[in-house]
Amino acid sequence: SRCGVPEVIYGPGKRPDQIVEAFELLARSQQPALATRLTPDQAEALLMAFPAATVNSLARTVSLGSLPRHERTVCVVTAGTSDRPVAEEAAETARWLGAPVELICDVGVAGPQRLLAELPRLRQAAVVVVVAGMEAALPSAVAGWVAVPVIAVPTSVGYGANFGGLAAVLSMLNSCAANVTVVNIDAGFKGGYVAGLIARPHEPMRAGN
Amino acid sequence: SRCGVPEVIYGPGKRPDQIVEAFELLARSQQPALATRLTPDQAEALLMAFPAATVNSLARTVSLGSLPRHERTVCVVTAGTSDRPVAEEAAETARWLGAPVELICDVGVAGPQRLLAELPRLRQAAVVVVVAGMEAALPSAVAGWVAVPVIAVPTSVGYGANFGGLAAVLSMLNSCAANVTVVNIDAGFKGGYVAGLIARPHEPMRAGN
Amino acid sequence: SRCGVPEVIYGPGKRPDQIVEAFELLARSQQPALATRLTPDQAEALLMAFPAATVNSLARTVSLGSLPRHERTVCVVTAGTSDRPVAEEAAETARWLGAPVELICDVGVAGPQRLLAELPRLRQAAVVVVVAGMEAALPSAVAGWVAVPVIAVPTSVGYGANFGGLAAVLSMLNSCAANVTVVNIDAGFKGGYVAGLIARPHEPMRAGN
Amino acid sequence: SRCGVPEVIYGPGKRPDQIVEAFELLARSQQPALATRLTPDQAEALLMAFPAATVNSLARTVSLGSLPRHERTVCVVTAGTSDRPVAEEAAETARWLGAPVELICDVGVAGPQRLLAELPRLRQAAVVVVVAGMEAALPSAVAGWVAVPVIAVPTSVGYGANFGGLAAVLSMLNSCAANVTVVNIDAGFKGGYVAGLIARPHEPMRAGN
Amino acid sequence: SRCGVPEVIYGPGKRPDQIVEAFELLARSQQPALATRLTPDQAEALLMAFPAATVNSLARTVSLGSLPRHERTVCVVTAGTSDRPVAEEAAETARWLGAPVELICDVGVAGPQRLLAELPRLRQAAVVVVVAGMEAALPSAVAGWVAVPVIAVPTSVGYGANFGGLAAVLSMLNSCAANVTVVNIDAGFKGGYVAGLIARPHEPMRAGN
Amino acid sequence: SRCGVPEVIYGPGKRPDQIVEAFELLARSQQPALATRLTPDQAEALLMAFPAATVNSLARTVSLGSLPRHERTVCVVTAGTSDRPVAEEAAETARWLGAPVELICDVGVAGPQRLLAELPRLRQAAVVVVVAGMEAALPSAVAGWVAVPVIAVPTSVGYGANFGGLAAVLSMLNSCAANVTVVNIDAGFKGGYVAGLIARPHEPMRAGN
Amino acid sequence: SRCGVPEVIYGPGKRPDQIVEAFELLARSQQPALATRLTPDQAEALLMAFPAATVNSLARTVSLGSLPRHERTVCVVTAGTSDRPVAEEAAETARWLGAPVELICDVGVAGPQRLLAELPRLRQAAVVVVVAGMEAALPSAVAGWVAVPVIAVPTSVGYGANFGGLAAVLSMLNSCAANVTVVNIDAGFKGGYVAGLIARPHEPMRAGN
Amino acid sequence: SRCGVPEVIYGPGKRPDQIVEAFELLARSQQPALATRLTPDQAEALLMAFPAATVNSLARTVSLGSLPRHERTVCVVTAGTSDRPVAEEAAETARWLGAPVELICDVGVAGPQRLLAELPRLRQAAVVVVVAGMEAALPSAVAGWVAVPVIAVPTSVGYGANFGGLAAVLSMLNSCAANVTVVNIDAGFKGGYVAGLIARPHEPMRAGN
Ligand SMILES: Nc1ncnc2c1ncn2[C@@H]1O[C@H](COP(=O)(O)O)[C@@H](O)[C@H]1O
Ligand SMILES: Nc1ncnc2c1ncn2[C@@H]1O[C@H](COP(=O)(O)O)[C@@H](O)[C@H]1O
Ligand SMILES: Nc1ncnc2c1ncn2[C@@H]1O[C@H](COP(=O)(O)O)[C@@H](O)[C@H]1O
Ligand SMILES: Nc1ncnc2c1ncn2[C@@H]1O[C@H](COP(=O)(O)O)[C@@H](O)[C@H]1O
Ligand SMILES: [Mg+2]
Ligand SMILES: [Mg+2]
Ligand SMILES: [Mg+2]
Ligand SMILES: [Mg+2]
Ligand SMILES: [Mg+2]
Ligand SMILES: [Mg+2]
Ligand SMILES: [Mg+2]
Ligand SMILES: [Mg+2]
Repeated sequence: SRCGVPEVIYGPGKRPDQIVEAFELLARSQQPALATRLTPDQAEALLMAFPAATVNSLARTVSLGSLPRHERTVCVVTAGTSDRPVAEEAAETARWLGAPVELICDVGVAGPQRLLAELPRLRQAAVVVVVAGMEAALPSAVAGWVAVPVIAVPTSVGYGANFGGLAAVLSMLNSCAANVTVVNIDAGFKGGYVAGLIARPHEPMRAGN
Repeated sequence: SRCGVPEVIYGPGKRPDQIVEAFELLARSQQPALATRLTPDQAEALLMAFPAATVNSLARTVSLGSLPRHERTVCVVTAGTSDRPVAEEAAETARWLGAPVELICDVGVAGPQRLLAELPRLRQAAVVVVVAGMEAALPSAVAGWVAVPVIAVPTSVGYGANFGGLAAVLSMLNSCAANVTVVNIDAGFKGGYVAGLIARPHEPMRAGN
Repeated sequence: SRCGVPEVIYGPGKRPDQIVEAFELLARSQQPALATRLTPDQAEALLMAFPAATVNSLARTVSLGSLPRHERTVCVVTAGTSDRPVAEEAAETARWLGAPVELICDVGVAGPQRLLAELPRLRQAAVVVVVAGMEAALPSAVAGWVAVPVIAVPTSVGYGANFGGLAAVLSMLNSCAANVTVVNIDAGFKGGYVAGLIARPHEPMRAGN
Repeated sequence: SRCGVPEVIYGPGKRPDQIVEAFELLARSQQPALATRLTPDQAEALLMAFPAATVNSLARTVSLGSLPRHERTVCVVTAGTSDRPVAEEAAETARWLGAPVELICDVGVAGPQRLLAELPRLRQAAVVVVVAGMEAALPSAVAGWVAVPVIAVPTSVGYGANFGGLAAVLSMLNSCAANVTVVNIDAGFKGGYVAGLIARPHEPMRAGN
Repeated sequence: SRCGVPEVIYGPGKRPDQIVEAFELLARSQQPALATRLTPDQAEALLMAFPAATVNSLARTVSLGSLPRHERTVCVVTAGTSDRPVAEEAAETARWLGAPVELICDVGVAGPQRLLAELPRLRQAAVVVVVAGMEAALPSAVAGWVAVPVIAVPTSVGYGANFGGLAAVLSMLNSCAANVTVVNIDAGFKGGYVAGLIARPHEPMRAGN
Repeated sequence: SRCGVPEVIYGPGKRPDQIVEAFELLARSQQPALATRLTPDQAEALLMAFPAATVNSLARTVSLGSLPRHERTVCVVTAGTSDRPVAEEAAETARWLGAPVELICDVGVAGPQRLLAELPRLRQAAVVVVVAGMEAALPSAVAGWVAVPVIAVPTSVGYGANFGGLAAVLSMLNSCAANVTVVNIDAGFKGGYVAGLIARPHEPMRAGN
Repeated sequence: SRCGVPEVIYGPGKRPDQIVEAFELLARSQQPALATRLTPDQAEALLMAFPAATVNSLARTVSLGSLPRHERTVCVVTAGTSDRPVAEEAAETARWLGAPVELICDVGVAGPQRLLAELPRLRQAAVVVVVAGMEAALPSAVAGWVAVPVIAVPTSVGYGANFGGLAAVLSMLNSCAANVTVVNIDAGFKGGYVAGLIARPHEPMRAGN
Repeated sequence: SRCGVPEVIYGPGKRPDQIVEAFELLARSQQPALATRLTPDQAEALLMAFPAATVNSLARTVSLGSLPRHERTVCVVTAGTSDRPVAEEAAETARWLGAPVELICDVGVAGPQRLLAELPRLRQAAVVVVVAGMEAALPSAVAGWVAVPVIAVPTSVGYGANFGGLAAVLSMLNSCAANVTVVNIDAGFKGGYVAGLIARPHEPMRAGN
């Protein structure tokens, strides 16, 4: 564990048995485990070895245990249906860090009433993760309604002049809202991780850690 | 006049007397005149020669007369105060093409209630011009509330990763709203021109024109 | 329906039965339906369920009914044969919004007489959609001959320094013609949608909508 | 005040008297005030009108009052001396939001011992803001030593292939550390604002806010 | 002289006396001289020293003598008035290489009749240089009317999404006309030089050169 | 035929029978035919129908007849072996336009003696086509040894920071040699076409053409 | 051999027998041979023909013999496991040039203690090759601990805003450490080659070479 | 001193007295001092305080003492006259690190005989620094003639599609020569520094340093 948070296993390029082994190492030392960007084969191997593990096939994650649960909610919001897998990855990561997660889907700016209807749920959160592709207008729109940090996750969803998510990430970096901060394109894991850290009760480390 | 719409004079690189002469030519043939991107010197020279001309110093335009007035409104919307000069250029151009113009300012997405308050005015328009810089989320937000074409004008307002308006123009091109179309960065003139064409009553040309 | 225009179904990532269900929902409430970017499987499923539907396999669209027909023509112009599918998507969308559509093909600037021969047909239109890849010179050339809005649709047709349509979209944004406005690369749907809105007779909404 | 946090005044393009007036408005309603990116003239006008205001000329900010002080520290770290003004802007903003701020300067990765020496101070913080230009390696380096969120602020410091901060912002978005999130180039204000929100004790809003 | 064509002097960064000296060197060996991108001071110094020199202040060139005159015309075409200085630099360079030069101005694609009217003159040329900024559609349009090489010179004329001439150079490289080739942005000298080489009667070099 | 040069058929997206039909049309009117970028299927269909046709499988071209042969040589030069297919496309096109073609391979700048050895052959040419990928230094190196136009054809050969040929095309546009002009990435056809036009004896068109 | 170092064979696009033949040529003249970027088929063919050859399947190289061994070590350092193949290519190349090679893996900046633990080994080297993708912070971090040249090899490892290695190469070029120099993305061969040249004892060439 | 090499002072943003003070610190501990990118005021202040210092106004450097002289030469080569200041900065830095420096100017690839004439001098060097702007073809050309490392320094010299040195840096990274490595645009200091490290006799550090 690095500084109190266990390592997370990144799937791409690893053999299924390597990932199972990594889980075993963590299990043996009583630590919660999380693996992301898994192929179906990798996920199945983990589930065979750890029948108690939680699989989220949309998120492409498998987790085993989690950090201690707390009360401060992470809200994950998506603009469109294609942004869902990235949002699920964020949600799984935040849950694994101990946070209760609220998922609010398909409230893109082109249908503005839908976001208005979700404001009560949105405003309960200690931090909001907004997942959006194309023009990525949603983080600014959400940020205008809350007084907590908004973690914007750009996605590569779209075509043409989105240039693989470039349009979305530039848009989010230029948000006119002061409470918006940004992670890499399609980085649901990072969005959920930072949100999870923000939400969880914090105690400063001592020099000895 | 090209196809029934008089030429517009683009100021940069022209001497004041050249612009005055261009106005005289149009005046003599009873045509309305419009000049854009004027320096104060150019504007003053025009006003001296044509005391009846209309000067808009924010828009940097001078106009003399206009096409016949009609009823269909062009609504020009801005996200922030710095987008105002580009919006004024759009408004002057649409007015000169004969349209009544409504200007709605400072309704950027980070303050969502302000846009909601302006919906009644917005929804009267036959076409909407949205001027926005930075993440340029406003056109999508506006487009969700109206059933008419939205002309998005990106501005170079912002800093850092806006790269001179690149973030805004990419964002607008990727709008998830179907009724949004885009012109060049800071091209208030073009936004107002296309909006003016859309608004004005149209009669198909005959082969002879 | 959003503001009087029914939703359009975007095919990618949806199962055939999901798309059929969406059509059924619209059919039940007497609304016209349009689906775009369909795979052959999706299109076939729709045709099975709705034998009266209109399939355009070049455009990859299926439609059922349309908004009320009107008189104001949308003209869709293409530069080269490879731009045809994008142009068909634009044409189907405009037709579905109620517009009569004229299609003028292969009048790219490198064969200038062909465009001249089509001027009479071109000039009947209330709005022109120009679909072009590579250097995308055609929108400016067309815009010089008409006094109506030109919606430019860049395509990713070309190779090398076209960088997936970047050359075309930059070219169109920089058009020296005042009446040209631009949508996303390969966005025939958007080009046809905005053109359809411009062409159809418009009545301002009331506050109650 | 938006959702409990007062508006911050952005200086560029405003006359000194407009900024003074904005401060007066906030003062009258007992709210703390902050203005950023001020010219010396703007700052002086504020100081004349509000002799009790705090001026930070390196940060180019003026503040009057602050949100209630709390215990959770924001640590602001800079890579090089040229990154200092952006760091000061971040620090002033976090202080104004009520956070105690620790400033750790000139601990860029090319002098690795300096960062090691500061670890005890760094690890007290509830959130870390890292300000860096050029290759912007520092956020990843810092993130490896702490278990709290790291807000990375890229700067335009550097030359040649930094392309106005592009190298730094891309580097930060690609950080291999899970706890790094990014704001716009030179956006010290945003970095400090998000950090301030993270640090301050939070109570979920009720539906009525 | 390199391979039979004398060196051309590039002005920027040279003192007036250095340029005069370079002319003297060429004059002494009976070679024609050309200097480009001159400041007024540099041009004046050359004129003082060589009263017979030809100054073109729009082109910012000074020449003394030229290669032997021949019959094959170079035609230089411009899209707009702002492209004129680059066109003049091309024209002066081609003249200096011995070619008769025809200059056809302001025949941009947005005014298509003007180009049609110039076809007879255009079609006399052995090679055409087309100078255009913004969307740079003119080279393709011209290339469609002639059966000789077209040298396209992109200019940095325009604003916003022209990104210093990037839009123009990409557009020209993607020309759908087979007879278009491209030089650097604003490189009137290069356009005129290559055109001059194409036009002049050619004799293959022997191994001894 | 456009202006005396027959149309060339571009293969991609066409059915074999469409291409055969195009050849038949040209054959019937006694015109030479050229098709480029052919798949093996397309080439085979042409060869079946026209056993006298010339197939170049490296170039992916098929030709039938050619314009009248002349004496002025086109020299095609390549930097590395991977650039060969693009060079062959250029060579076939120039031959089809009537030029004798010399092919000089693998004389990239990293092996400078090889180019020196080929100078006598190089210097016979009326025009040189240089095909190069990666850093594309060869056109400048060649241009320094000849006094004729050099047509530079960038290729997408390379990896990493070549970004699909971007490095090569930028390098060539910035050549410090005055006699270098550039076509699109991988556009062997265009390079050979322009070279072929330059080489062939030219007679100005009359107004009647 | 070019200037005393034999040519290296680049595999892509070559038939197995062509590569075997190239090895035979070198073997016959007693020169060491190296081939890079080999497919399994190419490697197998070489091994069949030269059973004494050294295959590194991770590096995708085959070598036969090497330049004379010397004492000055090349140290190859990687940030993450995915960077390993590029690192192996660098190591094989340096070995082939005669250098002893130390490989230090997985010491990316996000786990700073691991690099500290390797300092003694790192500091023995005459030159260090650092292979890193994503934000590529490692070269700067390594460079701060040594007084020898650091050759930074960016990799395309990562996703989203790494844009195929662009983020890494820009980051490395902007290193604030004075002793860092950079090669192409994924160019392990080049990194190892330059490092090998730096490490090997050098004798200036005479004019006759 | 970091690892045996004293720190170099970077001038921009420092007051003259701060730079003098930095020199005094180094002088007191008997270390050689070097300052780069100095304004005339900064240089003058240093010369006043240290009359024995060496000023190079072209390089914009001041140095006092140097590391111990050795025998292995650094050769600095420039393509054009405008690249001279960057080359001088490289030369001064290498000299200060103890290397004898040879400067070879104006041997750009467009004048190939000039480079050939300098081969004997070039081939004496233990390492070559090549400074070039525009298409930056020179490093590849030089690298083909030597068997030592070539440090390529791209410059921002040029215009149009050089985009501030982007064309040069991409070109150099893509060099087909295996012995070329690259530093930042205009980074003469870095080029000279790495070359100086390569040239100087090296002794591995012990664990204790
Ligand atoms: N071909 C298309 N390109 C871009 N947007 C489209 C297309 N077809 C439909 N849409 C938009 O996609 C939205 C529906 O998306 P969905 O809910 O995923 O079916 C509608 O509001 C349309 O405006
Ligand atoms: N306007 C120009 N643009 C680009 N290159 C030029 C220009 N004028 C002259 N040159 C080239 O610059 C070289 C001379 O540069 P210099 O030795 O600095 O005078 C000649 O070989 C010309 O090919
Ligand atoms: N992996 C590699 N990456 C880049 N260049 C290489 C690589 N392997 C070999 N080379 C270079 O490619 C040249 C040989 O290319 P070729 O003649 O195609 O085999 C040699 O001069 C090497 O410098
Ligand atoms: N011209 C230069 N370009 C880039 N880096 C430099 C230059 N001159 C000095 N440096 C680096 O800047 C650091 C000193 O920066 P500073 O502490 O601001 O004086 C040193 O470690 C040098 O490596
Ligand atoms: Mg979205
Ligand atoms: Mg805005
Ligand atoms: Mg086209
Ligand atoms: Mg830094
Ligand atoms: Mg133009
Ligand atoms: Mg090459
Ligand atoms: Mg890495
Ligand atoms: Mg150069």
